[in-house]
Amino acid sequence: MSYTPFNAPLLSVLLGDGETTSAFSIKADLDAMLGFEAALAEAQASCGIISGEAANAINAAITAFEPDIRAIGMATARDGVAVPELVRQLRIAVGAPHDGSVHFGATSQDAIDTSLALRLVPVLNLFLSRLNLIDSALAQMIESHGKTPLMARTRMQTAIPITWGDRLSAWRAPPANHAHDLHVLKQRVLAVQLGGAAGTLDMLGENGPAVRAALAARLGLADPGRCWHADRSGLVALTDWMARLTGSLGKIGMDVALMAQNGIDDLVLEGGGTSSAMAHKNNPVAAETLVTLARFNATLSAGMQQSMVHEQERSGAAWTLEWMLLPQMTVATGAALRKTSELLAAVTPQLS
Amino acid sequence: MSYTPFNAPLLSVLLGDGETTSAFSIKADLDAMLGFEAALAEAQASCGIISGEAANAINAAITAFEPDIRAIGMATARDGVAVPELVRQLRIAVGAPHDGSVHFGATSQDAIDTSLALRLVPVLNLFLSRLNLIDSALAQMIESHGKTPLMARTRMQTAIPITWGDRLSAWRAPPANHAHDLHVLKQRVLAVQLGGAAGTLDMLGENGPAVRAALAARLGLADPGRCWHADRSGLVALTDWMARLTGSLGKIGMDVALMAQNGIDDLVLEGGGTSSAMAHKNNPVAAETLVTLARFNATLSAGMQQSMVHEQERSGAAWTLEWMLLPQMTVATGAALRKTSELLAAVTPQLS
Amino acid sequence: MSYTPFNAPLLSVLLGDGETTSAFSIKADLDAMLGFEAALAEAQASCGIISGEAANAINAAITAFEPDIRAIGMATARDGVAVPELVRQLRIAVGAPHDGSVHFGATSQDAIDTSLALRLVPVLNLFLSRLNLIDSALAQMIESHGKTPLMARTRMQTAIPITWGDRLSAWRAPPANHAHDLHVLKQRVLAVQLGGAAGTLDMLGENGPAVRAALAARLGLADPGRCWHADRSGLVALTDWMARLTGSLGKIGMDVALMAQNGIDDLVLEGGGTSSAMAHKNNPVAAETLVTLARFNATLSAGMQQSMVHEQERSGAAWTLEWMLLPQMTVATGAALRKTSELLAAVTPQLS
Amino acid sequence: MSYTPFNAPLLSVLLGDGETTSAFSIKADLDAMLGFEAALAEAQASCGIISGEAANAINAAITAFEPDIRAIGMATARDGVAVPELVRQLRIAVGAPHDGSVHFGATSQDAIDTSLALRLVPVLNLFLSRLNLIDSALAQMIESHGKTPLMARTRMQTAIPITWGDRLSAWRAPPANHAHDLHVLKQRVLAVQLGGAAGTLDMLGENGPAVRAALAARLGLADPGRCWHADRSGLVALTDWMARLTGSLGKIGMDVALMAQNGIDDLVLEGGGTSSAMAHKNNPVAAETLVTLARFNATLSAGMQQSMVHEQERSGAAWTLEWMLLPQMTVATGAALRKTSELLAAVTPQLS
Repeated sequence: MSYTPFNAPLLSVLLGDGETTSAFSIKADLDAMLGFEAALAEAQASCGIISGEAANAINAAITAFEPDIRAIGMATARDGVAVPELVRQLRIAVGAPHDGSVHFGATSQDAIDTSLALRLVPVLNLFLSRLNLIDSALAQMIESHGKTPLMARTRMQTAIPITWGDRLSAWRAPPANHAHDLHVLKQRVLAVQLGGAAGTLDMLGENGPAVRAALAARLGLADPGRCWHADRSGLVALTDWMARLTGSLGKIGMDVALMAQNGIDDLVLEGGGTSSAMAHKNNPVAAETLVTLARFNATLSAGMQQSMVHEQERSGAAWTLEWMLLPQMTVATGAALRKTSELLAAVTPQLS
Repeated sequence: MSYTPFNAPLLSVLLGDGETTSAFSIKADLDAMLGFEAALAEAQASCGIISGEAANAINAAITAFEPDIRAIGMATARDGVAVPELVRQLRIAVGAPHDGSVHFGATSQDAIDTSLALRLVPVLNLFLSRLNLIDSALAQMIESHGKTPLMARTRMQTAIPITWGDRLSAWRAPPANHAHDLHVLKQRVLAVQLGGAAGTLDMLGENGPAVRAALAARLGLADPGRCWHADRSGLVALTDWMARLTGSLGKIGMDVALMAQNGIDDLVLEGGGTSSAMAHKNNPVAAETLVTLARFNATLSAGMQQSMVHEQERSGAAWTLEWMLLPQMTVATGAALRKTSELLAAVTPQLS
Repeated sequence: MSYTPFNAPLLSVLLGDGETTSAFSIKADLDAMLGFEAALAEAQASCGIISGEAANAINAAITAFEPDIRAIGMATARDGVAVPELVRQLRIAVGAPHDGSVHFGATSQDAIDTSLALRLVPVLNLFLSRLNLIDSALAQMIESHGKTPLMARTRMQTAIPITWGDRLSAWRAPPANHAHDLHVLKQRVLAVQLGGAAGTLDMLGENGPAVRAALAARLGLADPGRCWHADRSGLVALTDWMARLTGSLGKIGMDVALMAQNGIDDLVLEGGGTSSAMAHKNNPVAAETLVTLARFNATLSAGMQQSMVHEQERSGAAWTLEWMLLPQMTVATGAALRKTSELLAAVTPQLS
Repeated sequence: MSYTPFNAPLLSVLLGDGETTSAFSIKADLDAMLGFEAALAEAQASCGIISGEAANAINAAITAFEPDIRAIGMATARDGVAVPELVRQLRIAVGAPHDGSVHFGATSQDAIDTSLALRLVPVLNLFLSRLNLIDSALAQMIESHGKTPLMARTRMQTAIPITWGDRLSAWRAPPANHAHDLHVLKQRVLAVQLGGAAGTLDMLGENGPAVRAALAARLGLADPGRCWHADRSGLVALTDWMARLTGSLGKIGMDVALMAQNGIDDLVLEGGGTSSAMAHKNNPVAAETLVTLARFNATLSAGMQQSMVHEQERSGAAWTLEWMLLPQMTVATGAALRKTSELLAAVTPQLS
């Protein structure tokens, strides 16, 4: 047992997902926040808020910049956010006369929320391609085994004869719908954050909307047309979606574990788990893991919904709670998608 | 304290919502299930599955039918669902020779899930009209008080001066987005359920899809093109939406409660609560209630997500859990919408 | 589907529990609150805070008092609590010159929390006697069937041969431990609440602790030695206990549902549920219900824990959330205890 | 934002706790599992199950043993648990003729659950000593500032004058009670696990209970008198306790954040957080963090309660869910205790 399920040497191969995890490394976060600062300077220069020289100086400094991560960590314990110290260091790196143009008119939350959106881009694309793989695998199984008879079970009792094709189709529809929903959700979630101290872009005057639009264009994110500092419904819609997706995959896992029971024997599983006490065991570990990940996300997503009760223009308590939940749910979702493909490849239908 | 928050005489006026509650009365449920049986007979007659005489006989019997509710309750304790006993009674009421055509090829879940969809139609429309009222109220407040100065607060500390219009706009955008989402969601959730014993419409042969389409058309529901007995993601998407909506309204409540604090005095609340111990109190009860309802729905929606791990063709345990959660969440949502309008009407901005 | 799981005609026999429910009726609540007011007057008279005549007048009035429940409901919507209006009506019933002695030095929360404690007394005793029944039933099953062979299953796969006695013992130990814990918990939870406006018993001067002790003695509750207006850890310890108990009973239900599967056939269930579509079905409804109730309580108990973050001397939002969760969890616990006895009586071990 | 809240360079100083975290390192886990295997061999030798030479050989091998962690990680992905591969490597290290005596009669869960219990010993002692520090700090504040006037607030509105001593006492009682409860809980949770393949110690014959008792004595853990493979109520009682403790500390944090509001000014906070946008800010970061950690634990503890629905003799899905939740909750609890002491040291009461 390790205290973090995803990066512990023993459990990460079981419950983690390297590709998704990389989006949440310290390096990825700092790179994305610095990318925000660089693009902000360019956007502001393009709108005449700061000079082109300032933007160039900031971009040059960022290219060579090596943040003092330890100092940022210490400051985070005091400030609750990494940005004040990161910006302080960056301003020193830029130096006079352009240091005052760094992070101009922006606030910590602008950098942090935009960084998250930037890092979710490849993650959500990865999810879509994995959903595609699952759909193809199920389509192929339907083609190969669709007519194999299967006894339907309702309320855990035998019902009437159906086919493997019927059950496989019931597994296939929900992920396909979730993929469709994600295409829509991406437009909302992958959006730039720019509000300044209190969400009003007070220091940018009439140019606020133009800077936000230019920033969004530079970063390849949507321009939400407003500040979402205290409206977390987009992120919560995403974690709700994750819980529904892992719930649908958990249903597949539950079915496989039930079908693999000795005495039921609807299928044979290749490469199940071994036991330290019983040499004959072939445990349905991947199937069980899908149930675990479904219950994990269902548990954590309630905390994301609790975090919507945000005070005034910015809540420290509610916002910080997101940081403790969303990354884990994202990695659990990546792991469940990966495990589902592995599980489907290991299943051989049996005539029972 | 009463054991059910919504129908207790003392708490229902505070936490309940009569209009929403009526969708979940025993009468509404039985009426909707019988409406399903009547429309099913007609749809099957139109596809040649049963005779027109049988459909007429069933419809006539349903018109005059008075179910023995006590007997249905007793049978539900044994069967876990009300339908077997309801259908048994209805078959007696129809009598020979058409009793065998009642509920033909259908299963309990078809009647129960479709009944829910039918009863959600007016509820979701009610929600949309209440969202509209909230939007109008906020628009009017922005017009009246938009320029009144307000001190922004971030992390519970004073930040910079903004206006009431800034904060009111931050309150207004999320419910407007939720209304937009509900228009989309309705198409998915307000769908007919028809699958038969194991979801395959086995007794309807090639006519299964045609009967389902005809049934949907008669009931004014969508035809989902498949059976969703074990795919609960539509209903969970709806309860997730409810939690996000009440979360957004809870944020308004939290802000009002903070703004009404003596010493902050950003606003005056009309008609706040009195105290049994302190005559001077003017408690922000409606504002607090919005926070309570937000946390209530955030709590319960986790159970809906847990219930997605459905076994095989139908899970008794997971499906029953929905019945314990979704109706309550729906009433809480109705109550939060109602309370928000009341609260906004009671707020008078102050120059502090 | 009905919007409240416990009192709906169709579902209450399945998911409710009449004996537990009666503790949460409006009559039980009003009776207990009036019992608090009567005992408070006597306790204050015994300490010389109010006169004996006043206490007598209050008691006499309460004996004959018929509260206007509709008016209390309306006032609750404004005040958030029923007590201000209840006390107003009671003061009128008492009349001059003793009306000022009604509810003297007390606050709404004193009456409401003490009412809850009073009503939990019979409920927790009922739970203990039901736990005793379950223990006896399991002891008897162990005596009758303890040596019947059973195939152990770990991770849903066959492991090694054990006996029915082994599994029945694994079912028996947790409820026995929960009963032990409840004896301890009762001392903490069944405690009087008396704090006055801000928890300091300000109007009782030096006599505060003596009045609280006298009140506790009169009501047969513990004297906690302090006010617990904003410390809800006792109640949350109780709901945590409920979730652990229903979790342990849900494990029994899950095992029975798995053992009853066709193809596994470790046991035969008498009186299982019938189906509207399949005459041969014998659904393990009671077993599934135990799983449902376990997941229900696990879901709701998170909200009780969230409600511990109470603001200052009294939180409206957090306290109201308790009212929406604790009564339901209590009834679900009563139902799970009742269902477990029914289920155990229906089980006949099989040699598979 | 980093995907694991506790070990990320930027957030670990804010939300983590080094001392608690060390109990969940891979090294601590492997050391404890190997400690279990060594003590098991000695206990079995003392009961005549294996020879003294075998026990000596196993202990000698463990002293010098360096597990191949990468291979264990890979095997965990297949087996769902680390133990089969760890035991395989250890048997090779022991070599003939004593390799067959390694892990004799035990199962993976025996090693894993006992390892957790062993590592919780110092953690729970640390919690008790931190609770003691908090109690002392509050006692000293009561002595220094107990008589300073303070305006009580109920339902977020001013109530009546109280003193700082009143509120500090309300903060102090709950942690003191939680410390008392932990003394009791420790006896239950810090218990050895020994059940063998299916919980019956089948390979130890009549010596099973004696071996378990000897093992417990050697490891300094309690002998629970039975196997708790599928009864997780002890661990859930611990995580419930953690949620109640962090809930009580979150209430302190919430109060401090409210008291520190500009315009309320009940206290001055030293060393609050700085802002990247506003130089004048002094954010109550530590206070907010306590609220965050309370809501985090309240969220996750629901998953621990869900995991009680364990199938048969061992559930892969439910047991694995514990691993994803309990360590995090433990670290969050350690962090909240640490933060509370820091926060109390930073508070200076003000006459407002």
